[in-house]
Amino acid sequence: MGRQKMYLEKMAQALHLRNKLLRQSLAECLGTLILVMFGCGAVAQHVLSGGSHAIFLTVNFAFGFGATLGILVCGQVSGGHLNPAVTFALCLLGRERWRKFPMYFLFQTIGAFFGASIIYAMYYDALSDKPDSFNMSSSANTAGIFATYPADHLTLFNGFFDQLIGTAALIVCILAIVDPYNNPIPQGLEAFTVGFVVLVIGLSMGFNSGYAVNPARDFGPRLFTSIAGWGGEVFTTRSGWFLVPICVPFLGTIVGVIVYQFMVGFHVEVEAKMRKNSEQENVRLTNVNTNNSKEGTKEVH
Amino acid sequence: MGRQKMYLEKMAQALHLRNKLLRQSLAECLGTLILVMFGCGAVAQHVLSGGSHAIFLTVNFAFGFGATLGILVCGQVSGGHLNPAVTFALCLLGRERWRKFPMYFLFQTIGAFFGASIIYAMYYDALSDKPDSFNMSSSANTAGIFATYPADHLTLFNGFFDQLIGTAALIVCILAIVDPYNNPIPQGLEAFTVGFVVLVIGLSMGFNSGYAVNPARDFGPRLFTSIAGWGGEVFTTRSGWFLVPICVPFLGTIVGVIVYQFMVGFHVEVEAKMRKNSEQENVRLTNVNTNNSKEGTKEVH
Amino acid sequence: MGRQKMYLEKMAQALHLRNKLLRQSLAECLGTLILVMFGCGAVAQHVLSGGSHAIFLTVNFAFGFGATLGILVCGQVSGGHLNPAVTFALCLLGRERWRKFPMYFLFQTIGAFFGASIIYAMYYDALSDKPDSFNMSSSANTAGIFATYPADHLTLFNGFFDQLIGTAALIVCILAIVDPYNNPIPQGLEAFTVGFVVLVIGLSMGFNSGYAVNPARDFGPRLFTSIAGWGGEVFTTRSGWFLVPICVPFLGTIVGVIVYQFMVGFHVEVEAKMRKNSEQENVRLTNVNTNNSKEGTKEVH
Amino acid sequence: MGRQKMYLEKMAQALHLRNKLLRQSLAECLGTLILVMFGCGAVAQHVLSGGSHAIFLTVNFAFGFGATLGILVCGQVSGGHLNPAVTFALCLLGRERWRKFPMYFLFQTIGAFFGASIIYAMYYDALSDKPDSFNMSSSANTAGIFATYPADHLTLFNGFFDQLIGTAALIVCILAIVDPYNNPIPQGLEAFTVGFVVLVIGLSMGFNSGYAVNPARDFGPRLFTSIAGWGGEVFTTRSGWFLVPICVPFLGTIVGVIVYQFMVGFHVEVEAKMRKNSEQENVRLTNVNTNNSKEGTKEVH
Repeated sequence: MGRQKMYLEKMAQALHLRNKLLRQSLAECLGTLILVMFGCGAVAQHVLSGGSHAIFLTVNFAFGFGATLGILVCGQVSGGHLNPAVTFALCLLGRERWRKFPMYFLFQTIGAFFGASIIYAMYYDALSDKPDSFNMSSSANTAGIFATYPADHLTLFNGFFDQLIGTAALIVCILAIVDPYNNPIPQGLEAFTVGFVVLVIGLSMGFNSGYAVNPARDFGPRLFTSIAGWGGEVFTTRSGWFLVPICVPFLGTIVGVIVYQFMVGFHVEVEAKMRKNSEQENVRLTNVNTNNSKEGTKEVH
Repeated sequence: MGRQKMYLEKMAQALHLRNKLLRQSLAECLGTLILVMFGCGAVAQHVLSGGSHAIFLTVNFAFGFGATLGILVCGQVSGGHLNPAVTFALCLLGRERWRKFPMYFLFQTIGAFFGASIIYAMYYDALSDKPDSFNMSSSANTAGIFATYPADHLTLFNGFFDQLIGTAALIVCILAIVDPYNNPIPQGLEAFTVGFVVLVIGLSMGFNSGYAVNPARDFGPRLFTSIAGWGGEVFTTRSGWFLVPICVPFLGTIVGVIVYQFMVGFHVEVEAKMRKNSEQENVRLTNVNTNNSKEGTKEVH
Repeated sequence: MGRQKMYLEKMAQALHLRNKLLRQSLAECLGTLILVMFGCGAVAQHVLSGGSHAIFLTVNFAFGFGATLGILVCGQVSGGHLNPAVTFALCLLGRERWRKFPMYFLFQTIGAFFGASIIYAMYYDALSDKPDSFNMSSSANTAGIFATYPADHLTLFNGFFDQLIGTAALIVCILAIVDPYNNPIPQGLEAFTVGFVVLVIGLSMGFNSGYAVNPARDFGPRLFTSIAGWGGEVFTTRSGWFLVPICVPFLGTIVGVIVYQFMVGFHVEVEAKMRKNSEQENVRLTNVNTNNSKEGTKEVH
Repeated sequence: MGRQKMYLEKMAQALHLRNKLLRQSLAECLGTLILVMFGCGAVAQHVLSGGSHAIFLTVNFAFGFGATLGILVCGQVSGGHLNPAVTFALCLLGRERWRKFPMYFLFQTIGAFFGASIIYAMYYDALSDKPDSFNMSSSANTAGIFATYPADHLTLFNGFFDQLIGTAALIVCILAIVDPYNNPIPQGLEAFTVGFVVLVIGLSMGFNSGYAVNPARDFGPRLFTSIAGWGGEVFTTRSGWFLVPICVPFLGTIVGVIVYQFMVGFHVEVEAKMRKNSEQENVRLTNVNTNNSKEGTKEVH
């Protein structure tokens, strides 16, 4: 046992990455992989079983609790964003450095790519079993297991608002959860609460286009499907829909940041600082008093 | 980064509202907006997808966890009532000032109004896609997405009891959760527990008329639908049903407050005060003893 | 506001019950009322809506989280048993006095009776709307909303084991949760965990006869139905089935107590006491050392 | 009451097992029994009720929260593995001694065996009621209640990957939860989080072969069915499928350990140790300073 531990420790030392940003990006990669693996896995189970092993609610649970588990795995290292829109929001508010943004975006997308590929491997037989699985124009649209596609009723204009509102709602809730001046939940429960946010968004905003609200979660798996057999059509279908879940979430983030900060965030921040200042004032006054009384005491002696 | 932070801080200072009640009302507004956005969004997904993307349980989850998230967003500022009936209960028990009640009621209703409008924008295409969507007398009653309407079997008399019992159950549970003398849960978990209360009420009391149990949640969206295309019929249908979820919850609140306080609340309060008094007695006695012994010690020296 | 508070305090003083056991029994009554109101309400929603507003899972959720809320309401006062079988288990292990048992049993049954009556009032129109609602021999057996009845496949012999195993499983899990020597969860989360236990029992043991596993929850509502229109048949149907969920849970409790205590409970208890003893030994030794050194120090002075 | 307590204490002393590993194995046995009893019970309810009392989601909930409850019952004594793959992962990382592995494996399998037998007893009437229940070649394959069998579309090769990926995902999440250098959740919530992991795996990886990902959970009940009436066919069907959920999870464990440790685990460990070392350095420096200043102070006096 002693030798085993020594060997493990040596391995840890040898593999340790000195670059903090790289360590963080790697953790984000694993976290996003977990989110996409569980989320898209649930969609696969839903689509491929034809409803016998899933309902839409199970997909919502899987994305929600998949986000929770992804955050738990990487949160202590990288903050557990799992979503470039979240990284963007925190950069906007000056809580993360801007140079994190491209690295996180890249590694989140890579994680989502591999998460999708794991589900592809896992359900390869079930995919092959379904006729016309890899044909984008057939009704058996299995590409929707991996990336999001709009429902028939959705115009591009409404799809724009769909992603805008969805991401804004996500960001408002996440900002409340991680706001350092507004600590609504016990430490350590952030991951669970974010999972509930993702769950609720799926319950109420999932009908139009499958609530991507995450550029990495949508683009990584879409790239994978274009390679894995569905072809370039995954990008060209519905007049370039694929750009909506990549670009619009960042606009939604800006809206979410403004709404939260203007209606709650700035107020709690200013209040907290006022309270802090007046406390320091009090402390200083108390010190003066204490010094006086000490001096007084000294004079008595 | 330094400049960004400075700029954000200046903006916070500039936007800071000096009036505390206004800050609180604004937070209530955002919280109720979130509750209604997620809750009514789930009803929209249920109704518009024809059951493919939702079951009634998902609506219950959305209202429950939507309440949780709404409370998390605004709770530190305003207490997170999201419901004039809750504000009323706390005023009745002297835990909130009565002048809060009209302001909270107004801003909760405004928040519910905008929450409904966001869902309307999000699902505009899906609403338009459904024939006869905006016709109150057609069977495709999409007005029920936003406000509550009684089921066919329900008489106005039974509907009165439906809202009375529902609100009383809500208030009994909420009073137990926030009772300062009966702290059943760790601090910070109130929002989650209230979410469970709303969920359970939906699971067991949702069949008659959709468990409004919240005047703001029902009136705000109903007002919105009367403007957005469904017309004044939303107020006149079923011989003025709309008054039931506005007025009866306050009667239910009174019943709930009486039941909880008489069966549990007053007893734990009196017990807690008795314990406190006897502890102070003990402290005083201890002090006397300590003084005595100190004096004794002094005499020895 | 000052006058309101004074008035409330006077009312609290006037209504305060001096008898502790009565206060506790009253709290148990309210807690069980909440459990049965939410649980049977969900069954009513399931049966009366014909499945449009519920599935069996929602009934399980309602009983589980209804138990959670019932415990939260009364737990600080009475311990939150809500179930004579739980009271019996704690008496068996010497953690509650035996004289509590009959009082708790009585008030839990009264609470369940009123919980059922509230649901009856709430869904009176829906019950009346259904043809043959109050006829026990019709297929529309609405009596099953309130009390439990065995499925057609179940013999009395297997029904005996059904209740025995269900209650034993319940008691094993509850004993682990409240075992003072085996504290597996943070304080304040017991109610939620018990809710999960009830939920899981419903998920896996609900098909035979609706998992009563609680004499009060079954007998109180059954008594109500016999008065409210279903008649004495609720007692005579299926050759006296009603006795099974009243009597067998106590046998199941004994089995559960034995299984938990023999496989885990006694061991953690003895271990904890051994640890405590050796610690006291250490403290005594340390004291001796300290005294010695103090004496040594004194001698040096 | 005093006599009852004394009697209970004597019984505890008499039954106390001196061998720690045996106590732990016994606790693991009870924990796995609970997991399998609730999990397989839910499958039984699903299969035997023909869907009226369950959907696949309820099976996922039962296995997830069944794992939570199993861990709560035995976790303080044995760590609450409930799964030889988890024990194997912790042995690989040097956190448990290797000699625990065979004992835990044996007792977990025994627990799973008895868990299955309890469900068999509970649903004996329902099983007998179904025609051809005990005939492996009939379509009413009730053997799937207890052990896992691959879906028709699954080849042995894909089944291998199914179990490999499933177990790797399980182990990555569990390692993150119990990693001593990466404490993502408040103490005491590990059991709930592991429950979510099992739930999510069921939501997204349950369609191929019912997500055994646990050699004991699969082999124990399979052994039981071979004895209880289904015969040796439970081992020979689908060209020896039964070996896949026994052997492959250990390979999946190795993959999971490598993925987690290389991408997150080793990094947080090395970081934590570096931080600790530099803190000790600081403490030593501070001590030197304090000593100096003390000496300085002394010299002043």
